[in-house]
This record gives sequence, C-alpha cells and structure tokens, in this order.
Amino acid sequence: MPDVLPALANRRARRAFDPRAVPVEIQRTLWEAVSLAPSHGNGQPVRLVAAEGTVAREALFKALSEGNRQWAGAAPLLVAVLANPQHDFEAPNRDGSTRELWPLHTGIAVGNLLAQATDLELVAHPMAGFDEAAVREALGIPQNVRVATVVAIGYPGDLADLVPDLRAREDAPRKRLPIENLVSIDRWDERQAVSARSPKEKK
Amino acid sequence: MPDVLPALANRRARRAFDPRAVPVEIQRTLWEAVSLAPSHGNGQPVRLVAAEGTVAREALFKALSEGNRQWAGAAPLLVAVLANPQHDFEAPNRDGSTRELWPLHTGIAVGNLLAQATDLELVAHPMAGFDEAAVREALGIPQNVRVATVVAIGYPGDLADLVPDLRAREDAPRKRLPIENLVSIDRWDERQAVSARSPKEKK
Repeated sequence: MPDVLPALANRRARRAFDPRAVPVEIQRTLWEAVSLAPSHGNGQPVRLVAAEGTVAREALFKALSEGNRQWAGAAPLLVAVLANPQHDFEAPNRDGSTRELWPLHTGIAVGNLLAQATDLELVAHPMAGFDEAAVREALGIPQNVRVATVVAIGYPGDLADLVPDLRAREDAPRKRLPIENLVSIDRWDERQAVSARSPKEKK
Repeated sequence: MPDVLPALANRRARRAFDPRAVPVEIQRTLWEAVSLAPSHGNGQPVRLVAAEGTVAREALFKALSEGNRQWAGAAPLLVAVLANPQHDFEAPNRDGSTRELWPLHTGIAVGNLLAQATDLELVAHPMAGFDEAAVREALGIPQNVRVATVVAIGYPGDLADLVPDLRAREDAPRKRLPIENLVSIDRWDERQAVSARSPKEKK
C-alpha cells in the first residue's frame, strides 16, 4: 500500500500556537490552494476573509463559541471560509427535489486549505463553534453569504500554553473507525451503520 | 511564495480513462486518505461504496445524469461518497438557528480523496449530476444516508476516446477568479461579490 500523502497524514486539529505571524507569501500559497478546489460548472462559490489585524481578530474571536475561545485567541490568523449559494448550483434529482452544492464545494476548498497548511508545517484547525451572524458583523460580510467555518491558522506552539485537558488531546493517538466500517465494495454493508459516536449502536 | 502542493495543483476534472483497474492496495490508500479527514467531535459521518464489479457499476452508471453518462462509464471505479447526518452534529447559532455540518465534513473528505488520487497519478472526477434515489437503489444504501457525490476514478486515458467538445476541455487552461476576488484581509471587500459565473455582475 502506498503511503498516504504526508500533507493529509500529518494534519492534526492542534490548539497550541506560536505567536509568530504567518508571512504574506505563505498566506498567498494557502489562498492559491483554496482557489484550485473544483466546483460544479466552475462556479467558485468560496470566499475567504482573513482576520489578521488586531481589531478584526478580536471581533471575530468574540464570534467564536466559549469552548473555542479557550485556545483560538492564540492563533495569529483566523480565516472565515464563506460561500455564496447564488454563485453555485442546486443539482436536480429525477423527482424534482434538489441538492445544494455549495457546502460540499466549500468543504473541498477547506480540505485544500488544511492540506496546504499542513504541507507548510502550519496548524490549521477548522471550527464549527461560532455564531454566524456575529462573524458576518465582525467582518462586514453580506447577509446572503454563508459562513461555513472559521479556521485558526499559525505555527505550532508550546503545549504548556494549553489547559491540561486540551494539552492531553494535542498529541493523543488519532482515533478512526476501522476501514471496513468506512468502505464497502459494490453494496452497502451493515458495518457501515456503526457510528463513531456510539460504536455499539447502529444508526 | 512557496509552491502549491502538487497533489492540489495537478488535479484536473479529466474525463478520459484508461480501462486498467485500480489495484486494491492503491484503493486502500485512497480510503485511508478519506478516513483521515477531520469532523466535529470526530463524528466521522462519511461512508464510501466503491462500485467496481460489473453489475454494481452498471447500476450506478444508470443513476448518473445524461451528461455524465457520456464519459463516466469508462472509469474502472465509481465511488459513491455518502454521509449519515445522524452521525454528525448541527452547530448552534446564538439565536437558536443551526448549521448542518455533514456536508462540510463530506467535502473535506472528498478533498482528501481527490488530493490522494492526484498524488497517485489517478484521475478522480467528482460528479454532481446523478439521481440520489437511484444511487441508493443501485448500491443498497439506506434511506437515512445522504449521497453527496459520485466520484469517477481511474488512470488517465486517451483523449481520442472523448467526444470533441469534451476532448477540448480535458487540457484547457484552468480558469479561476483572481486572488483579490477570492480573499480579503480583515473585512469583506466588494470585489468578492463578483461571480465567476457572471463576471460582470455582483451578487
């Protein structure tokens, strides 16, 4: 089996950051990586607002959940990953129902960002805990633009800066379901109904 | 500016496939790459069904849109990327509204799949054009599991196998919005309202 790409294998959702700024030319490579993500019809619905200056970072920080505020303030760069659904498509099913594509496309772009950051030896930690309206207000984002995630980016820092329970998680062994619960060949397998959240239950 | 990771820069949504099968050990690396994607609370909502056998591939092929049926039948491997929303979370906003996370998480996993495939010199082309119910039926997927995308995977093939208009697209120059329309620093910029689909309009 060939090795998994290091940019994927080395990614961890770390929370300890060095205060050193991320240089502009390094940021540029991150944005180019996001730009290269595919989208149906090349609609390119994803946009980024990178909060680097003190006022913007403080405003965006306050939009984060309490849990994320325990550690994300140390990141020199907080990036709001956005998408405009009007720039994207809804894919039709044969019965007339539709599937929104912007969240999937945004996720692919976030995957690119995380891989590129990891390749550059940065930590990039995407957060789900934030208030969408407060993020818009903090960064002047229009109402019709969705906030998909806020990513904390920076060089890895000192574990000693973290509270003990977060410190323990920083280098804890990675946990994933066995591959046979993830993938099946040719037909869905009941092992795939096992949940990582409640491994004894099938949902 | 450091180079963008080749696994991201070399990815193209190609449509010409060599008929050669993707070896099992190569497939395994693709699944490991998908497994490594992050998810909130490590919920791991993503599942894959890889259609490789003749019956499964034909059934899944028929679930694709007419446009995709012009070329995707040549792919030796068609992978349905799925997610169970019950394995994932809805993130709360302060006003009580919520944001679904499974589509974002699925997109990140797809990003990993595409990057890993590109690194292995495979084509991996994610498709939005399919009928969700027909994909479920083709592969025995439960009703509560969503189909996010179907990815055509294989080694690159001969452009001569494609119809002329698809052949022209295969190696056409990549088009993306300028970086200043994608990213802004500290505050949303009106240039970000420009749409790739209708560049003269702001939406």
